[in-house]
Amino acid sequence: MQKARTAILGASGYTGAELVRLIAMHPYLEPTALTANAKAGMRMAQVFPHLRHVALPTLTRIEDVDFSNIDIAFCALPHATTQEVVSALPRDLKIVDLSADFRLRDPAAYEKWYGRPHGALDLQAEAVYGLPEFYREEIRGCRLAAGTGCNAATGNLAVLPLLQAGVIDPEEIVIDLKTGVTGAGRTAKEGLLFGEISEGFHAYNIAAHRHLAEFEQEMSLAAGRPVQPTFTAHLLPQNRGILATIYVKGGPEAVHAALTEGYANEPFISVLPFGEVPATRHVRGSNFVHLGVATDNRPGRAVVVSVLDNLVKGASGMALQCANLMLGFDETEGLMQAPLFP
Amino acid sequence: MQKARTAILGASGYTGAELVRLIAMHPYLEPTALTANAKAGMRMAQVFPHLRHVALPTLTRIEDVDFSNIDIAFCALPHATTQEVVSALPRDLKIVDLSADFRLRDPAAYEKWYGRPHGALDLQAEAVYGLPEFYREEIRGCRLAAGTGCNAATGNLAVLPLLQAGVIDPEEIVIDLKTGVTGAGRTAKEGLLFGEISEGFHAYNIAAHRHLAEFEQEMSLAAGRPVQPTFTAHLLPQNRGILATIYVKGGPEAVHAALTEGYANEPFISVLPFGEVPATRHVRGSNFVHLGVATDNRPGRAVVVSVLDNLVKGASGMALQCANLMLGFDETEGLMQAPLFP
Amino acid sequence: MQKARTAILGASGYTGAELVRLIAMHPYLEPTALTANAKAGMRMAQVFPHLRHVALPTLTRIEDVDFSNIDIAFCALPHATTQEVVSALPRDLKIVDLSADFRLRDPAAYEKWYGRPHGALDLQAEAVYGLPEFYREEIRGCRLAAGTGCNAATGNLAVLPLLQAGVIDPEEIVIDLKTGVTGAGRTAKEGLLFGEISEGFHAYNIAAHRHLAEFEQEMSLAAGRPVQPTFTAHLLPQNRGILATIYVKGGPEAVHAALTEGYANEPFISVLPFGEVPATRHVRGSNFVHLGVATDNRPGRAVVVSVLDNLVKGASGMALQCANLMLGFDETEGLMQAPLFP
Amino acid sequence: MQKARTAILGASGYTGAELVRLIAMHPYLEPTALTANAKAGMRMAQVFPHLRHVALPTLTRIEDVDFSNIDIAFCALPHATTQEVVSALPRDLKIVDLSADFRLRDPAAYEKWYGRPHGALDLQAEAVYGLPEFYREEIRGCRLAAGTGCNAATGNLAVLPLLQAGVIDPEEIVIDLKTGVTGAGRTAKEGLLFGEISEGFHAYNIAAHRHLAEFEQEMSLAAGRPVQPTFTAHLLPQNRGILATIYVKGGPEAVHAALTEGYANEPFISVLPFGEVPATRHVRGSNFVHLGVATDNRPGRAVVVSVLDNLVKGASGMALQCANLMLGFDETEGLMQAPLFP
Repeated sequence: MQKARTAILGASGYTGAELVRLIAMHPYLEPTALTANAKAGMRMAQVFPHLRHVALPTLTRIEDVDFSNIDIAFCALPHATTQEVVSALPRDLKIVDLSADFRLRDPAAYEKWYGRPHGALDLQAEAVYGLPEFYREEIRGCRLAAGTGCNAATGNLAVLPLLQAGVIDPEEIVIDLKTGVTGAGRTAKEGLLFGEISEGFHAYNIAAHRHLAEFEQEMSLAAGRPVQPTFTAHLLPQNRGILATIYVKGGPEAVHAALTEGYANEPFISVLPFGEVPATRHVRGSNFVHLGVATDNRPGRAVVVSVLDNLVKGASGMALQCANLMLGFDETEGLMQAPLFP
Repeated sequence: MQKARTAILGASGYTGAELVRLIAMHPYLEPTALTANAKAGMRMAQVFPHLRHVALPTLTRIEDVDFSNIDIAFCALPHATTQEVVSALPRDLKIVDLSADFRLRDPAAYEKWYGRPHGALDLQAEAVYGLPEFYREEIRGCRLAAGTGCNAATGNLAVLPLLQAGVIDPEEIVIDLKTGVTGAGRTAKEGLLFGEISEGFHAYNIAAHRHLAEFEQEMSLAAGRPVQPTFTAHLLPQNRGILATIYVKGGPEAVHAALTEGYANEPFISVLPFGEVPATRHVRGSNFVHLGVATDNRPGRAVVVSVLDNLVKGASGMALQCANLMLGFDETEGLMQAPLFP
Repeated sequence: MQKARTAILGASGYTGAELVRLIAMHPYLEPTALTANAKAGMRMAQVFPHLRHVALPTLTRIEDVDFSNIDIAFCALPHATTQEVVSALPRDLKIVDLSADFRLRDPAAYEKWYGRPHGALDLQAEAVYGLPEFYREEIRGCRLAAGTGCNAATGNLAVLPLLQAGVIDPEEIVIDLKTGVTGAGRTAKEGLLFGEISEGFHAYNIAAHRHLAEFEQEMSLAAGRPVQPTFTAHLLPQNRGILATIYVKGGPEAVHAALTEGYANEPFISVLPFGEVPATRHVRGSNFVHLGVATDNRPGRAVVVSVLDNLVKGASGMALQCANLMLGFDETEGLMQAPLFP
Repeated sequence: MQKARTAILGASGYTGAELVRLIAMHPYLEPTALTANAKAGMRMAQVFPHLRHVALPTLTRIEDVDFSNIDIAFCALPHATTQEVVSALPRDLKIVDLSADFRLRDPAAYEKWYGRPHGALDLQAEAVYGLPEFYREEIRGCRLAAGTGCNAATGNLAVLPLLQAGVIDPEEIVIDLKTGVTGAGRTAKEGLLFGEISEGFHAYNIAAHRHLAEFEQEMSLAAGRPVQPTFTAHLLPQNRGILATIYVKGGPEAVHAALTEGYANEPFISVLPFGEVPATRHVRGSNFVHLGVATDNRPGRAVVVSVLDNLVKGASGMALQCANLMLGFDETEGLMQAPLFP
């Protein structure tokens, strides 16, 4: 079987490197083109020495890629830029996008949260929300999948089954989320220096994080009515991992049952025994999600805890999961490596 | 002026060492006796090499201390043990206790949360809750102050003024708290190994943390009615610092105003300008508390963020603040060192 | 092809868990028995939640394993205990031992460094030093391989080719080594608590580390004369990774050439271009070794830097590499996963 | 007594903030002017929220400072820039410089290591090397003190007494040094991001670090002949602290005695009992230096370990120590705070 020829646009960021890491072990994909406009001409081993042992094409500029020779492209570029780049790609090329550009269905919501009108409304209309556990069939048949935001995935995977099952009050959802720093990318910023992050912790973008748009969109769809959760994100002094602590109004057993049943056949999602709580360290480097449910001390309420690795299930692993679906491979291909602990 | 002769019972733990660190710079206190029964006979510099430059008495057993020669004792022992030890001390000795043994006013609450009847009900009745910002006059006149729990202090300092001012709904308080590992002490446990904590994050004791008892006690007093907040604690991969993210129902401006006014004259508490959020790294090693308020995305709700250093304002610093009051010194004596950042 | 039935003795430690992680992705090995005497009866997912998604046998006691049903056993037990356990195993069972018990050829050296006579001299005589890059053929034909110590591997892989090629002075070798904390295992000790390790760094066992015995043994063999390097180990505030900075007297280009040529065909060893230096983060979670050479500022001297992951190439990965050789599989089977960065 | 009016030029970097932290507790200094050209007009609390509780002047541009109103200036600016700035300051202003610009006595050495001719040779000739333990009297009488480099201080403090006492071979000195990241400053660079530093370790500038110039200068002076040590620096995943492991040829007892005697009266330097080794965590945030000596396994050799906090004794604390001398205060004023552990 010939391997699918794969392009990674934006290979010099963390999610790009993570795609290469995963694809290097994938039996049916091969990295055919890697782009990084600012670093074109460099070898990947110079940019990411941990990939030194993998035979890889040299980094090029996007305009130098022959897309007629590509079966699928992963687009790991900044938002806004992405719209322009994807608009210029062949219209029959399969694409999995990791940016925020095609996640929101409503152009008005996009404009509200991203501060400018969307520049490729036809593509936005075509795109499928890339959360396989909820849009598996749509992804299988689509040309353009829009990978879910890492924080949005962590929260939505915990809450959507509860809203679908009607076991919680849609008016009373509080998502307190903590994320490792790699979610902020590899751009040099004072606030992301080791000296600023290590041995410290803080909240950011309170009630204003753009992933809130994805929560509102997907939760409202799941509930069949407008849902507006409270959402605060915090930055953890660790590289990988997101943990969302979610406070809901609903019976703890019913909450646990809704998750257990909803995810009974999902290869990447484990619902822990009632009362056990997950930890980010136990999914590090993997595509797995661990969900735990505990009884709140206020009667009739529950606490749901959701963890995943932001660079894998929150980004590159989920994108590969989408690609597997779009290319007709087994959904888990290349994604079953165990987490790395410690 | 002769310095107050000071005993530290339980000097081989992190809070004991922190008391020594602070007292070493205090103009009116001198460390006269240090006890650590398991390490009696050792020099403090062997147990805590960072205190090598301070002239200190050798560690002894409690029974070898001549308490007639002591003006004030800090008791940094495990709970339960503390009851026995304090019961055996002279009844006129001034004591600041850092354990949980004398924090709860209601013997039934103690028994419920600590799983056994209290063994020194007379001392429990005598003790004053050692949160100076709310019990300053009581502490000034007391003999036995019970230092607030580190998590309880972080949450109570943020919430009590709001309940007193009546600006939030007492039925809708969610405290999502994250704490550094030194709050768990220096006892060797698998779960506290570097390999288990580093690069990871998890919740613990969901809805069952004993500091919930202190929340219920103090918030109910402040509100004049029973208050039961939701409370979840998480363990951060960092040494020091607690951050509580508190979700309340109430107008954000009113919340900010209540804190600003309530703490207008407090030397250790800074209420940040509206919308700014604090970080644990900015109070590290100090007795300061930073409080921030932001608007929730759900209308009519606010998010309050509270940070402090669990070993200083959450334990030894607060204890020294109490001691300053009890001995008639300026409350800030020995406690104005700036935080250590980075 | 039937998979080789595999036992892991001591599966509740970090190296045991790492063996399970690697074997779970190995096409020709299956975990048939996992032992952990103190945790017998527990599921592996309780002890190591990151392995939750892998179907695994329940932990048992060693005496409950039917070794007639086992093709190969990995022994990840403490030294001394290991001698007793291995002595009692069937004499035709293939074994890869990860302890220190069978690494030293000379009984007197064992007694000197480990403070007691060896209790299984026949097994010690039979064992092969499990460093595949130097003992490949011996390992292929052996029954009992003794995996190299993690620090010893890091240093020996850098120095042995230089001594064999005669490009350095055997009298002038200084090995300054820094290791992550997982090398110290999962036993709860005060000195390994997060609060003691994080944000700190220190040397330990100066000139007295037991891996010095392996340096002396292998370097002397390689040089054909007694070699005694200077060796100091330090503890890094990180989970995984060893870096050895090695100061040698010899021409830098000759040193680089000896490594490049010596390792030209090794699948796991990369010699970086002259002047580039490796980092532990770029081999994390993998079986790869990166070696770098730079010119010292003292003429006629070079600095060699060697990195590997102590739990993989320094322990469980190297053990699996040995097992692949002993069972006739490709040496790299199950070991080609890319490092996890960040 | 009127406090000395103090200017800090370059107050927005880590060493600038550290000077403010220390001076805030100093009884005889007051911060009168703080400059940070790129952040002029901002309050210090915006740039460094941990200094929020200290009353401080607003940040200004250097040209807006009235130096006739200043008693002493600390200059914490980048090298090269410093020459220009200091040249323009009044010639009778007392200055402690923290840059590298005035540390090297030999203009040729400066040009060799810094790649350009020195631009203020008269000032360079006037400057005193700011290592109080060796130049106390010169500093006391000087106008311009050049604070030692942080790595240079760590190594020189360990080695200079040994060369002066003649107990080691000047030809055989290897300095393997590991430093926390704050030594690299607060400028946003990819290589200093949390994701790049955390859980990793590497060497940098092998045999080419500029502090080598300070080693050569001071060690040659101490030995009375040219000395060229080997020196390699590594970057630790921690904020503060430098540890140098120094391999010397000489009798371990004689080495220990030379340090013990040489530093018998030094307030900030502790020589540990023979065989004990220091740790960076035990000097964090303080001006203390801990030195340990152990026997090497090669006969007739010793290992010396030296630790200090790069931002305090390696920069701002040492600078304040110089200032105390220059202003006639007790040398330890404002510098006796205990280290912060954990």
